[in-house]
Amino acid sequence: MIIVFKPNISRKDETAVLKEIKRLGYRPHIMRGVARTVVGAIGDELTHQSLENLLTLFPQAVESVMPVQKRFKLVSREAHPANSTIEVRGHLIGGRRIQIMAGPCSVESETQLLATAEAVRAAGAAILRGGAFKPRTSPYEFQGLGHRGLKLLAKARKETGLAIITELLSEDHAELVAEYTDIIQIGTRNAQNFQLLIAAAKTGKPVLLKRGLSMRIEEWLLAGEYVLANGNPNLMFCERGIRTFETYTRNTLDLAAIPIVKQESHCPIVIDPSQGSGRADLVTAMCKGAVAMGADALLIEVHPNPAEALSDGAQQISLDAFARLMTDLKPFLEAAGRA
Amino acid sequence: MIIVFKPNISRKDETAVLKEIKRLGYRPHIMRGVARTVVGAIGDELTHQSLENLLTLFPQAVESVMPVQKRFKLVSREAHPANSTIEVRGHLIGGRRIQIMAGPCSVESETQLLATAEAVRAAGAAILRGGAFKPRTSPYEFQGLGHRGLKLLAKARKETGLAIITELLSEDHAELVAEYTDIIQIGTRNAQNFQLLIAAAKTGKPVLLKRGLSMRIEEWLLAGEYVLANGNPNLMFCERGIRTFETYTRNTLDLAAIPIVKQESHCPIVIDPSQGSGRADLVTAMCKGAVAMGADALLIEVHPNPAEALSDGAQQISLDAFARLMTDLKPFLEAAGRA
Amino acid sequence: MIIVFKPNISRKDETAVLKEIKRLGYRPHIMRGVARTVVGAIGDELTHQSLENLLTLFPQAVESVMPVQKRFKLVSREAHPANSTIEVRGHLIGGRRIQIMAGPCSVESETQLLATAEAVRAAGAAILRGGAFKPRTSPYEFQGLGHRGLKLLAKARKETGLAIITELLSEDHAELVAEYTDIIQIGTRNAQNFQLLIAAAKTGKPVLLKRGLSMRIEEWLLAGEYVLANGNPNLMFCERGIRTFETYTRNTLDLAAIPIVKQESHCPIVIDPSQGSGRADLVTAMCKGAVAMGADALLIEVHPNPAEALSDGAQQISLDAFARLMTDLKPFLEAAGRA
Amino acid sequence: MIIVFKPNISRKDETAVLKEIKRLGYRPHIMRGVARTVVGAIGDELTHQSLENLLTLFPQAVESVMPVQKRFKLVSREAHPANSTIEVRGHLIGGRRIQIMAGPCSVESETQLLATAEAVRAAGAAILRGGAFKPRTSPYEFQGLGHRGLKLLAKARKETGLAIITELLSEDHAELVAEYTDIIQIGTRNAQNFQLLIAAAKTGKPVLLKRGLSMRIEEWLLAGEYVLANGNPNLMFCERGIRTFETYTRNTLDLAAIPIVKQESHCPIVIDPSQGSGRADLVTAMCKGAVAMGADALLIEVHPNPAEALSDGAQQISLDAFARLMTDLKPFLEAAGRA
Repeated sequence: MIIVFKPNISRKDETAVLKEIKRLGYRPHIMRGVARTVVGAIGDELTHQSLENLLTLFPQAVESVMPVQKRFKLVSREAHPANSTIEVRGHLIGGRRIQIMAGPCSVESETQLLATAEAVRAAGAAILRGGAFKPRTSPYEFQGLGHRGLKLLAKARKETGLAIITELLSEDHAELVAEYTDIIQIGTRNAQNFQLLIAAAKTGKPVLLKRGLSMRIEEWLLAGEYVLANGNPNLMFCERGIRTFETYTRNTLDLAAIPIVKQESHCPIVIDPSQGSGRADLVTAMCKGAVAMGADALLIEVHPNPAEALSDGAQQISLDAFARLMTDLKPFLEAAGRA
Repeated sequence: MIIVFKPNISRKDETAVLKEIKRLGYRPHIMRGVARTVVGAIGDELTHQSLENLLTLFPQAVESVMPVQKRFKLVSREAHPANSTIEVRGHLIGGRRIQIMAGPCSVESETQLLATAEAVRAAGAAILRGGAFKPRTSPYEFQGLGHRGLKLLAKARKETGLAIITELLSEDHAELVAEYTDIIQIGTRNAQNFQLLIAAAKTGKPVLLKRGLSMRIEEWLLAGEYVLANGNPNLMFCERGIRTFETYTRNTLDLAAIPIVKQESHCPIVIDPSQGSGRADLVTAMCKGAVAMGADALLIEVHPNPAEALSDGAQQISLDAFARLMTDLKPFLEAAGRA
Repeated sequence: MIIVFKPNISRKDETAVLKEIKRLGYRPHIMRGVARTVVGAIGDELTHQSLENLLTLFPQAVESVMPVQKRFKLVSREAHPANSTIEVRGHLIGGRRIQIMAGPCSVESETQLLATAEAVRAAGAAILRGGAFKPRTSPYEFQGLGHRGLKLLAKARKETGLAIITELLSEDHAELVAEYTDIIQIGTRNAQNFQLLIAAAKTGKPVLLKRGLSMRIEEWLLAGEYVLANGNPNLMFCERGIRTFETYTRNTLDLAAIPIVKQESHCPIVIDPSQGSGRADLVTAMCKGAVAMGADALLIEVHPNPAEALSDGAQQISLDAFARLMTDLKPFLEAAGRA
Repeated sequence: MIIVFKPNISRKDETAVLKEIKRLGYRPHIMRGVARTVVGAIGDELTHQSLENLLTLFPQAVESVMPVQKRFKLVSREAHPANSTIEVRGHLIGGRRIQIMAGPCSVESETQLLATAEAVRAAGAAILRGGAFKPRTSPYEFQGLGHRGLKLLAKARKETGLAIITELLSEDHAELVAEYTDIIQIGTRNAQNFQLLIAAAKTGKPVLLKRGLSMRIEEWLLAGEYVLANGNPNLMFCERGIRTFETYTRNTLDLAAIPIVKQESHCPIVIDPSQGSGRADLVTAMCKGAVAMGADALLIEVHPNPAEALSDGAQQISLDAFARLMTDLKPFLEAAGRA
């Protein structure tokens, strides 16, 4: 920790602050600068108490307190210098192949799901997405088929060989969802629902953690830390757009998250261009950017008839559009040295 | 719903869009303007399917789709024109008296809690706050005393007569927390954790719903709708700052939320100046503003020794500072016609 | 400056970084911590070159570079511990009396302006606001009456004795505007138009600097520094709302800016509740909050017939509403110990 | 314009609103819906007065007012369906070839500029960037070489054949800067400095308009409208990151702006990955994404020795890094069908 003193601090205050630093287990190291005196408090920030309280205890003396260590450990590159990979039914996420996870926003019916599953498999997807339990802004909106939706996903897996990813909304469903799915998705609204993260981690299934609507990357990595710290190494991060003032798009897809997560962490990074823009007509451009910038997987909303979708119709693309997209992405996959 | 056509739309597309509008249960009404043709789709937006999908189905023809109804019902002023009040152990929230909820960020020990409880009661608070289960950004930070914390809160209530408010983090704790607390707090990270909102509602205890970090007021009202729609009328909203680019404060307290929530809803509105600024030295100014603008209650973090707090020390005020704050607020309470 | 090294930095890199720090005029001071080595670079940050470039020069060795000094000088409380006051035609801004600046968004006609001027003077305002040159988002919107607007403002001053505040949009108008106005307003879109700030400063007239749409408070203070550094001590800051994701209000009024600017700077702080909310129905609540939190002046848009206003009609209040507002504010002025 | 009435509006209010709509030149068209009555006000929104004032005039009757027309005209695709191209010294911007604009943040010396110019030309750039007049957050930072910087740019053009782009900060410099440069850059802080936009437009030189820090795309297009409406058709837009809460990057580069600007406007779109991230180590990834998503040009900060740069050293890349970047981009250019 670095503590910056206010100018003209009294000798008495200085002594008191230094005493408090020692009491909290740090060794203070004073540097008298030209305009400010600065104290380096030497000690492990992750095991000692934060010194931010000095601001409250000595408001007349302390101007700022700055941590110098990063707060995440297990998700960090320092802890695991090589890229982590996650195997899901024979498909490797985080390897040379960019994996495509595609399917409807919500599972609505057997016909809808099977038609989508077959079409996305034929076009090159390895993983089927589909919401069975849906978090909806309003209680009056379609909340998903629940258990029946999970069964339909399992059926689609059996018929197509696709692996399954679906969202977990409630700790109480953790076992049930884990029984059916291959990857557990934690949605943006639950990105800091730590109890849910722990419950997901404990199922042992790979976890895809979406970035919260207004989550700093550091907070996202720390939320991921909850998964690894609870004994589950199979974590992937999914950027899906952050909330800004812009209104043309539903969210602002922060593609810089790809190289940053790659730099800070060993976990795979997935991009969701559908939520990330909220507009079907932008999905192709977003996917091209994501592939070029190093994404390990894409999570794409596809529906046999987007105009009839029970949720988020404006951002789902049709089966034909998905097939075209897969073709359009090929040259960019090659340019990126991916398959 | 209002549907705006693109200029130069073909007759064929127009017919197709109108047919689709009818198929979805609305009656279309065409207005040919100078620069745009606009369709009013007549029907109840809350019971019919959204027409936003038209953007996907007819990208060449439809420029925008705008809802005209508000999406919340039970929390709205239209549904309940008078102010709602909530009684908690004889104290009325939403009435003429501004209620003070005060106490530590986290329950840390019996000594800490009882000292705080007695001090805040003596200074005029009616409700004791204190976290037993704590949501922390990092898994390596203090996570609260849990069940033992709840027992200490109950003990403090017994000794001081203060009512209790504490946070619910997990559906699995809903019964346990309800057994001890008088008001259930839903924190900012769980503001759109709808399963938790439903679990809280079903306990029958009054619910204080904090605004999410980047929640629009409309989304907040809709999250509150989950509580009322699950049979619990005792809901209060709590503004605690939103996330912006500003770094002087931890959050930006949006005091305009007070008159807006009062206008749109009948539910009481509470202000949290501690989380709302993240700085103990701003709490007094924030409270004055909140009282002047019409808040029904204040939720303030108070600690016998903020510098030793196990969480959020920088924003907790001392017992003395709290007593001074209560005195300083008096003229503003009178100016606002409140007690 | 504080330089944090990456873990496992080589001895060779360490030597090279230290050499570079010395070359740039700082004296390095090494602290070896538990998890990180930190260097304090001793020297005046305002006269030496920034060390942020070390991040680029030694990406393998340097993790972060943190300044410890504040970058503003003349506007700071350290430079001038007492409150500054500004006298405008006998009215003191920054003193015990809260000054009211009121008038139309745009000067539209003699009738409109004089009617407003007389009404706001009668209700207690000391300063008349009115835009002659208007910055408009679209080139097709009303751009103000220009020179004729300035003449009308002068006429209103002559007839009512009110002082005048109006916006300066262009360096080329600096002399012209200064000839007519008592206070020069720099608008939100020009808050970092440094050439305009310098031109305004050089006229010698008091300057009101609005906060930019997405300006951090530090940047705002630094923009103000341009005024003082160009020989003009009569600067006041005006908070008028920042841009966030919220859509109920046009901007989010950051009332915490009042105590923060008071703490960091000696310059008066003004609140604009009209731009700050964009809604006439919120102006009264906003003014109450601003007064309670310590604002030195209020800048309020008033129009004899808001519905016919040529700009921003939705946020202007009527003459009657203004008179009521002045009455409603009285108890809050007293509570705040202001006149 | 669409006007939505509040529920339970009185017959008298309805008549009054309709009368006012007519008085302002629109023809009202009533639609009685299930939950709301809606009025379509038929008339050209760009030539008539806005009806937003109805909210102020009839607060008890009008719930919302929504425009249906887009506010920009000359920059829109509707006005000019084909892509516009801009020719600068034989180089076409907006054509099949992606143009590279590269050079130092600030012109610092002849040696620095010429070394950079030759290196970027050799690596494939057609246009040299370099700031002569620099807008700096603090008055104590390096403000650019001014006129001498312009002369150095002209010298570099003469020696290398590169075209020149440099920033215009002040209306008073418009003629001077236009005398030396081939493209006038309007910086992010001046993106809504409309007087400067007009002055730039009137020089007749092509204008590159950076997006403001917190500008919605609609506002950006409208700012561009000021250039075209003042007789200058040679406008290009430049996305350079927006301000968000994220702190890993200096700004959040909104790459979705590429397909959106392409959809809404005929003007070329340029990406600035240097300002867009604020970090040299992210520039390559950002460029790959920009090329894949359809950018017409890249504006990249390059410096012979970034660690000694007088401004923004942390985001400038070295000459070697630039040469590598040009090589790394090739497969993505081909994938995008560009040269």
